[in-house]
Amino acid sequence: MYQKRIDAVRKELAERGLDALYLTNGISFLYLTGYSYIATERPAALVIPIDDEITFMGPLLEVDHIPLRTSLIGRIRTYPDYPGQKHPMTHFAYFLRDLGLSNKVIGIDNLSGASGRWGYRGSPIVKKMPKARFVEARDIVENMRIVKSSEEITLIRESAKWGNLAHTLLQEFTSPGLWDYDIAMRASLEASLIMKKTLGPEYQAWRQGGSPASAGFRGQIGSMSAIPHALSTKVKVKKGDVVISGASADVGGYNSELERTMIVGKPTAKQKRFFRVMLNAQNAALAAFKPGAKCSDVDRKASKVIQKVGWTRLMRHHTGHGIGLEGHEPPWLDIGDNTIMKPGMVFSCEPGIYEPGFAGFRHSDTVVITEDGSERITYYPRDLESLTI
Amino acid sequence: MYQKRIDAVRKELAERGLDALYLTNGISFLYLTGYSYIATERPAALVIPIDDEITFMGPLLEVDHIPLRTSLIGRIRTYPDYPGQKHPMTHFAYFLRDLGLSNKVIGIDNLSGASGRWGYRGSPIVKKMPKARFVEARDIVENMRIVKSSEEITLIRESAKWGNLAHTLLQEFTSPGLWDYDIAMRASLEASLIMKKTLGPEYQAWRQGGSPASAGFRGQIGSMSAIPHALSTKVKVKKGDVVISGASADVGGYNSELERTMIVGKPTAKQKRFFRVMLNAQNAALAAFKPGAKCSDVDRKASKVIQKVGWTRLMRHHTGHGIGLEGHEPPWLDIGDNTIMKPGMVFSCEPGIYEPGFAGFRHSDTVVITEDGSERITYYPRDLESLTI
Repeated sequence: MYQKRIDAVRKELAERGLDALYLTNGISFLYLTGYSYIATERPAALVIPIDDEITFMGPLLEVDHIPLRTSLIGRIRTYPDYPGQKHPMTHFAYFLRDLGLSNKVIGIDNLSGASGRWGYRGSPIVKKMPKARFVEARDIVENMRIVKSSEEITLIRESAKWGNLAHTLLQEFTSPGLWDYDIAMRASLEASLIMKKTLGPEYQAWRQGGSPASAGFRGQIGSMSAIPHALSTKVKVKKGDVVISGASADVGGYNSELERTMIVGKPTAKQKRFFRVMLNAQNAALAAFKPGAKCSDVDRKASKVIQKVGWTRLMRHHTGHGIGLEGHEPPWLDIGDNTIMKPGMVFSCEPGIYEPGFAGFRHSDTVVITEDGSERITYYPRDLESLTI
Repeated sequence: MYQKRIDAVRKELAERGLDALYLTNGISFLYLTGYSYIATERPAALVIPIDDEITFMGPLLEVDHIPLRTSLIGRIRTYPDYPGQKHPMTHFAYFLRDLGLSNKVIGIDNLSGASGRWGYRGSPIVKKMPKARFVEARDIVENMRIVKSSEEITLIRESAKWGNLAHTLLQEFTSPGLWDYDIAMRASLEASLIMKKTLGPEYQAWRQGGSPASAGFRGQIGSMSAIPHALSTKVKVKKGDVVISGASADVGGYNSELERTMIVGKPTAKQKRFFRVMLNAQNAALAAFKPGAKCSDVDRKASKVIQKVGWTRLMRHHTGHGIGLEGHEPPWLDIGDNTIMKPGMVFSCEPGIYEPGFAGFRHSDTVVITEDGSERITYYPRDLESLTI
């Protein structure tokens, strides 16, 4: 799987007349080699020469880690630490010269040469190598990631399965009087343990942070459900609350997205009405996914349902986003994205309506574009009855 | 607390001859206003004019969130979503013109005008506003964050307290035959629930992801303890393992760092020797923290202990880093950082030694520089006997 991707990168390098690709995005390392790392202030780069061994340049603390995760990185060149007596970019320039790239044409995903987290500072690699020509080439790996292979879809499907378990437990555990973290952490723990027991000793999480399987509310409890990106809440679940949940699992670094609007207790007429409009909007979007459709059209179809009932003012975001190794990826189900859908693209589908002070309503499902239409690979029930607690 | 920080920003703007500060780093939003958000592909910026209301420019989905977290943001200007029919940077340029900044001098923390996550693309704000002059001013907020106020130290101290509980439970729960996530998630759940019950209904987590209190191993179990930034492990804890743990808690967005090397079962002579050298190195560093000392000197003192026994080859990283709202912050306890320590600076202190195939040894403590020396505010025991399971 990885070798095929690297071959595709090299083919693209040849077509663009580039001698090497210099990558700073850790997700690209994971995508191309299976090795992932904790991104910090310490710069790290993966260099893929067109006809030479793949080289990792980065902090010494990764030196023993890499061979445990991949055999595709032939050379590991490290600096002691950041900022160091000699700056990492000075080391990187030296390493690149050593690879014979000092006067070559190098594609790069970030002209600074470092992902630049947590207070990192440094002069850009392009200034350290005046004889080399750097060409913005972030799109090489980004474009490859847009259409998922059957292996990737298998991983996303497996993620959806364990997300479904985590969500089932989350719903079972949701009860008035409980704090959202209480419910979320219990469901995530139980689902992760069952996942490990089922998948066996070979399973391990690949991504940084989080748990193998996870479910939670991220604060979207009661009136806070009207805040699409709430972070947390002080208040406990109570009878009559609308809650918005989310669940996923890490399978080979891949994500899926499953979110549900649930009602704690007998739904009121107003809650029912909002729920119905939200579900109609999601249904309209789901019906529009197919090869040849435009991303913007799917967004338009969902929005139209909401606009038709006069609730444009309750909309807060577009219909969805690509998903794979990252939580959000291009393309976007947005009125401004006219990308044509192709088999293998994977999206979240999540139109929402939000009335401040009352509640928010949003389901999110993961949808894969197939040869002749689409398939919803998150299969948790979406109807109000199933989601009434 | 926040108003004082904003006043300090404006004073600095005046001194530099800047008309406004344009911030894209969400941690700066949190530091200056108490409002934090989930950074995605959608650009967001906080604009602090020298003599006008603070303005948030960002996605519509944050519109109802901001007033719930801060009253310091006077104006909220939003675009529908990303990428949109009109790009967010075009909206931002319009908003800035509307604020009367179109031909002014604007300090900025990122010349692109967007934090640029998850596949974001766009032409930089500096190109959208040809008559304005943008000046790199990332250091204004970064410099303010280096020396912590007494309020901040109180929050970090409170974080250390709940990190201590999480770690106590983690050690209690650690036992041969268990998977690291099993131990970690149970300890994090129990500690978070007790934390909420103790701090009461007003407590809520401020940061994105993670749990209120947390403890875990991040894969550093057995021979994987030799990988300083392991992400996860397949294998379960077994008798004879060296394990490296970590614990923290989110208190008002602030972190602390507590890490311990623990031995499962009776330590071998080799394990004892490695543990002793690591502890001596940490003691040497701890003794060196004081106002007026250089960061590089603390690093040198820890390294000297390890080098003296001939184990330079077992070193993988420097001695530590600043800590506060982010996991790592400048300054760095690194041979290349000659920052002079001042009262109120807070650091992790964590020299380590790592023998591939055998094990790693690292404690990390959080240390605050005081008027006449330093104080270790993580108080979990550091001796081998206490850390033998």
